[in-house]
Amino acid sequence: MSSEFGKILRVSVFGQSHGPAIGIIMDGLPAGEPIDEAELLGFMDRRKPKGPLSTQRREPDAPQFLSGIQDGKTSGSPLCALLENKDVRSKDYEALKDIPRPSHADYVAYKKWDGQADVRGGGHFSGRLTAALCIAGGIAKQILARKGVFVGAHLLAVAGIADENFGLNPTQELFSQVAEKSFPVINDACGESMQQAIKEAAEDKDSVGGVVECAAIGVPLGLGSPMFEGMENRLAAAIFGIPAVKGIEFGRGFASACQRGSDHNDPLVLDEQGNITMEKNDAGGINGGITNGMPLSFNVAFKPTPSIGKLQKSVNLSTKEETEIIIGGRHDPCVAHRAVPVVEAVAAIVILDCMLEAGLNGHQ
Amino acid sequence: MSSEFGKILRVSVFGQSHGPAIGIIMDGLPAGEPIDEAELLGFMDRRKPKGPLSTQRREPDAPQFLSGIQDGKTSGSPLCALLENKDVRSKDYEALKDIPRPSHADYVAYKKWDGQADVRGGGHFSGRLTAALCIAGGIAKQILARKGVFVGAHLLAVAGIADENFGLNPTQELFSQVAEKSFPVINDACGESMQQAIKEAAEDKDSVGGVVECAAIGVPLGLGSPMFEGMENRLAAAIFGIPAVKGIEFGRGFASACQRGSDHNDPLVLDEQGNITMEKNDAGGINGGITNGMPLSFNVAFKPTPSIGKLQKSVNLSTKEETEIIIGGRHDPCVAHRAVPVVEAVAAIVILDCMLEAGLNGHQ
Amino acid sequence: MSSEFGKILRVSVFGQSHGPAIGIIMDGLPAGEPIDEAELLGFMDRRKPKGPLSTQRREPDAPQFLSGIQDGKTSGSPLCALLENKDVRSKDYEALKDIPRPSHADYVAYKKWDGQADVRGGGHFSGRLTAALCIAGGIAKQILARKGVFVGAHLLAVAGIADENFGLNPTQELFSQVAEKSFPVINDACGESMQQAIKEAAEDKDSVGGVVECAAIGVPLGLGSPMFEGMENRLAAAIFGIPAVKGIEFGRGFASACQRGSDHNDPLVLDEQGNITMEKNDAGGINGGITNGMPLSFNVAFKPTPSIGKLQKSVNLSTKEETEIIIGGRHDPCVAHRAVPVVEAVAAIVILDCMLEAGLNGHQ
Amino acid sequence: MSSEFGKILRVSVFGQSHGPAIGIIMDGLPAGEPIDEAELLGFMDRRKPKGPLSTQRREPDAPQFLSGIQDGKTSGSPLCALLENKDVRSKDYEALKDIPRPSHADYVAYKKWDGQADVRGGGHFSGRLTAALCIAGGIAKQILARKGVFVGAHLLAVAGIADENFGLNPTQELFSQVAEKSFPVINDACGESMQQAIKEAAEDKDSVGGVVECAAIGVPLGLGSPMFEGMENRLAAAIFGIPAVKGIEFGRGFASACQRGSDHNDPLVLDEQGNITMEKNDAGGINGGITNGMPLSFNVAFKPTPSIGKLQKSVNLSTKEETEIIIGGRHDPCVAHRAVPVVEAVAAIVILDCMLEAGLNGHQ
Repeated sequence: MSSEFGKILRVSVFGQSHGPAIGIIMDGLPAGEPIDEAELLGFMDRRKPKGPLSTQRREPDAPQFLSGIQDGKTSGSPLCALLENKDVRSKDYEALKDIPRPSHADYVAYKKWDGQADVRGGGHFSGRLTAALCIAGGIAKQILARKGVFVGAHLLAVAGIADENFGLNPTQELFSQVAEKSFPVINDACGESMQQAIKEAAEDKDSVGGVVECAAIGVPLGLGSPMFEGMENRLAAAIFGIPAVKGIEFGRGFASACQRGSDHNDPLVLDEQGNITMEKNDAGGINGGITNGMPLSFNVAFKPTPSIGKLQKSVNLSTKEETEIIIGGRHDPCVAHRAVPVVEAVAAIVILDCMLEAGLNGHQ
Repeated sequence: MSSEFGKILRVSVFGQSHGPAIGIIMDGLPAGEPIDEAELLGFMDRRKPKGPLSTQRREPDAPQFLSGIQDGKTSGSPLCALLENKDVRSKDYEALKDIPRPSHADYVAYKKWDGQADVRGGGHFSGRLTAALCIAGGIAKQILARKGVFVGAHLLAVAGIADENFGLNPTQELFSQVAEKSFPVINDACGESMQQAIKEAAEDKDSVGGVVECAAIGVPLGLGSPMFEGMENRLAAAIFGIPAVKGIEFGRGFASACQRGSDHNDPLVLDEQGNITMEKNDAGGINGGITNGMPLSFNVAFKPTPSIGKLQKSVNLSTKEETEIIIGGRHDPCVAHRAVPVVEAVAAIVILDCMLEAGLNGHQ
Repeated sequence: MSSEFGKILRVSVFGQSHGPAIGIIMDGLPAGEPIDEAELLGFMDRRKPKGPLSTQRREPDAPQFLSGIQDGKTSGSPLCALLENKDVRSKDYEALKDIPRPSHADYVAYKKWDGQADVRGGGHFSGRLTAALCIAGGIAKQILARKGVFVGAHLLAVAGIADENFGLNPTQELFSQVAEKSFPVINDACGESMQQAIKEAAEDKDSVGGVVECAAIGVPLGLGSPMFEGMENRLAAAIFGIPAVKGIEFGRGFASACQRGSDHNDPLVLDEQGNITMEKNDAGGINGGITNGMPLSFNVAFKPTPSIGKLQKSVNLSTKEETEIIIGGRHDPCVAHRAVPVVEAVAAIVILDCMLEAGLNGHQ
Repeated sequence: MSSEFGKILRVSVFGQSHGPAIGIIMDGLPAGEPIDEAELLGFMDRRKPKGPLSTQRREPDAPQFLSGIQDGKTSGSPLCALLENKDVRSKDYEALKDIPRPSHADYVAYKKWDGQADVRGGGHFSGRLTAALCIAGGIAKQILARKGVFVGAHLLAVAGIADENFGLNPTQELFSQVAEKSFPVINDACGESMQQAIKEAAEDKDSVGGVVECAAIGVPLGLGSPMFEGMENRLAAAIFGIPAVKGIEFGRGFASACQRGSDHNDPLVLDEQGNITMEKNDAGGINGGITNGMPLSFNVAFKPTPSIGKLQKSVNLSTKEETEIIIGGRHDPCVAHRAVPVVEAVAAIVILDCMLEAGLNGHQ
């Protein structure tokens, strides 16, 4: 196992859903970077469950910093931050101990760790751990913003209902507008339909999946490399660390498989200032694994939440007999909308790591 | 940059399209594994350009082993294999030196390496380097086969025309049948239509994209980990090292974003021998980053070849003026069908690496 | 920076001497390993300052486990353990803020992190962090013991006064005897002289250095590799992470530079059971980077504690003028005797990591 | 196994002593760095066996570049260079196939790789591979020199006979003078005595060990980190990759264990230009793992060559009986003097890697 990633900036995540605390270490942060805690809490708030469309588990989620910060600034040594788990009801999981929930990690964890894994609430596989990722990502976003790099995301689709997409030139303003909404879409009418679909799924004791579109602007040309440390490789490797992700595509992605080259290729042109730019951005800001100065752009597919209240087939691991389960507990009928800041968080960490590697470390 | 990947089995790729040779190092191979060179050549042959639908550059591509093999078996020390570049016509590229080809890496390479990169034929970004990956992957496939693991792939779609897919239980036989075909599809009628579409694109001096479906059977339960070293993370990180890849999805992938949980979840059941299995495989054989014993299954999107013979806009990097180019040279109007064994190769390397990490190192 | 090490078992250390807490993450531990907390506290106790020969800072140092343990056993997910810093007197350091202490990291930290590093008590450079290493090492030692591997160390020399050395075949009993002593030597008379030397240095407001000899028995043949991931490479890379280490040597080490081959070479012979062994162990249990089945054996040189109460030259970083300092605060006149369990801890982590990599993961 | 090292600059070594070729890949080199091949050959020449005190195996050792160089400059993509093995006499090793040579890697390689390792001439463990390291190191030295960093080494001791040491301020001139000598010492009279000792050992069919002192000047302050990625950690991890190394110490090293703090600590003072410097350099240019602006300085202990012509005890691995061997073949009675440029090479690679990581990438 390795619950860490990054090359110059290493982020390590620990904790289980129902243990005493979860948290992160960030090793390799530049020194002297101010951390605005209010802004960080605001960012983490975007991930919190809210309203009837989310789990009823409610955690205050104020990070407690154990190291790496001095006088409100990063000190250059590893930063450790904790989130205590307070609203834990493990007894919901007692009944499920021997019966793996379909399409959860229960079964593979049981086999891989000989029944020793802590599976209460998903254990170390839980979406709860994305709260820790948001601490790291929120800090990365603040550092990136001072370098002129902004990362934004929104819910592009839920249950087949689509939002508008970011388009060729997403702006910091658009990112902020979406971030301030309780339901993170560009077009609120689309958002209403999506919420309705989630509500209907919840009423059916079922769940739905979704797609998150993420973009980053101000990313300097030249990050990443050909072959195995390209921006696509590094973003993909990190994004699949978010639970429930089943796909990632950059720029036109899977749709590019249906394009012709004359349609897909992004012509190089001069902008009004005489600088080289591209007429469009089907590449999603990356050529040959390397950022090309256009906005980074990618989509992430989230499967429907595996925890549903419907009757499902499973097998009792003790008795080795087929059985059925209904999953109780407190669950999200959709995780994709809450995953929007998590995708931003992971993208920000990866981009900052690449910038640190490229030596783009100074304040502007 | 890093042109290498892997944890226990490290594969490092070197060479440029028009340099003296390309090659690979494999560090971490188990000792005593026989290498069947004829079988390896047969595998590499699948990647070679053939017929009118491929580049007219023809390389013999017989690997020359410099180290790591003794008496036909791996010796435990790093294996180095070379492929000489023989059929090189660099003058085709002279004219393009100052004019980056749209959606190629020319422009980012020029900027990232201050004009020092060797861009002839795509340099280190060239699809030519996938021949080296096929040496490593071909060796990995032979070792995996002795452990009962088989990797296969086929062209799932080109230009919007779809082949049948592998289905719930792909077999070694099916993999072999596809591998023996000159055009790697399951349904030859679909293949005919695809080839027609490629031919039409070529006649239009244009190119088309495609999708490769890859599966692996016999993969033991328990490979991979939660979070950042899961099977999806590691496969994605490696697969994006293949030029022209713009997306990857596991199991139902992006389609799962439109599913409900009750539809997507894979029920656990007992098979006829009383062993636990799943009724279907929307997860693509992976839960929580860990293989679950079902076939591994994923799709890879390839964009259309960026080299096209049509007139395209670009900018002259010397004069900083807008201009137009027509790309000559010898190119593939589609790379997706030749990428089929490359996807297999990379998947085999990653799976073998995970098996070595898990200690599943012995012969059966 | 990277405050972590290991390949399969990753250990990450965080915290500053005067921050709220220090701690570690262990990622990659096998699941189901019982942790005996009393034994762990006993191990950590060996590192604690005791008596007049050590700093007067006294910390309870009972680790608080936040994750990775369930029902007293490792769960397979990352283990996080904290030690709170309770007995902190940062005002001792106010006066030194602008005046770097000679041969401390103050000056380089000031320059590297633009004055942002937390230098109170040594910050992240402090010997205090070795308490966190002892948590990880204590856990590794327990797991190793169940595999029949035992790690021991003793103070081989202080201020030029030598203890007996472990000899050709150190035993688990000998390791235990030394571990139970308040001053970790084999020969107590030598220990008395050493303590006298430390006391004299303390009375002179000065400090002394020392050498720790470490050995591991039961280490299976075959761990490590040629070249850059050999046992020597990995142990050295980790051991230099302990503050104040200035040298490491394996087997006869620097003395082997004065030997002839006929003297240094370890003849292969059969033992009474007819198994291959070596007549002596000048190699320290390692040939070509790989363990050879003989006891692992190495020495570590510790410089004298840089904090001394004598007047020393320094430069005021604000005024850029030469000045003098006397270091107050609470310090050890020698760190080498307290470093004995720390060397064991780091060695145990590295050996366990190599065993996990070799797939030697099961209980006996 | 891993025959590679480095973080930003990755160096991977392949080949066996008696295979077709050995070589290296350097991945992560900055682009546009001129490679002076004549200077590189001159550097590699220093490692070559010469005169009666060295093996009679003679290889031309002119590197053949397969990739990564264009128009005499680095191109930014992985550089691969080969050295063919021409003067191979494997039959010398036939007799030894079943009888491991004491203190060679034969026995551990046999056991680790189930008898599959290529042990002819030492296989992948052979000192022959240091020729490949010298290609990488020679290139690193050229790049460092353009950044004002110079690395030098000399033979500090052989068989207990000592050369003068570099002293507080070694210069580029001193490095050059030593490099031009056929026997790499500062004081030629000492060198004469050393050569006499080697000759006597050879006449006795025996071998001797030695110590190499290495220094680097112009190293910027701030390279490395606390804990596990410090300069000492990284240098040690790489240096132990050189065959026959049994110890490394920085600054006063093991002697510091006998010092008092008041003697060991390096006082900070102002130099004539008013810049901060240190009055002496017992720390070897490193505090807390970080370079402090003083010359980097360390010693490396080499054991006597294990191949000797005297009768030695061993065990026949086939018959499991005790036996005796006399090692024929062509060997060095001492490797330490030929190791001088190898230590420089490895140090240069590590320092360049740290500088690239720190973003100190530009030409002066």
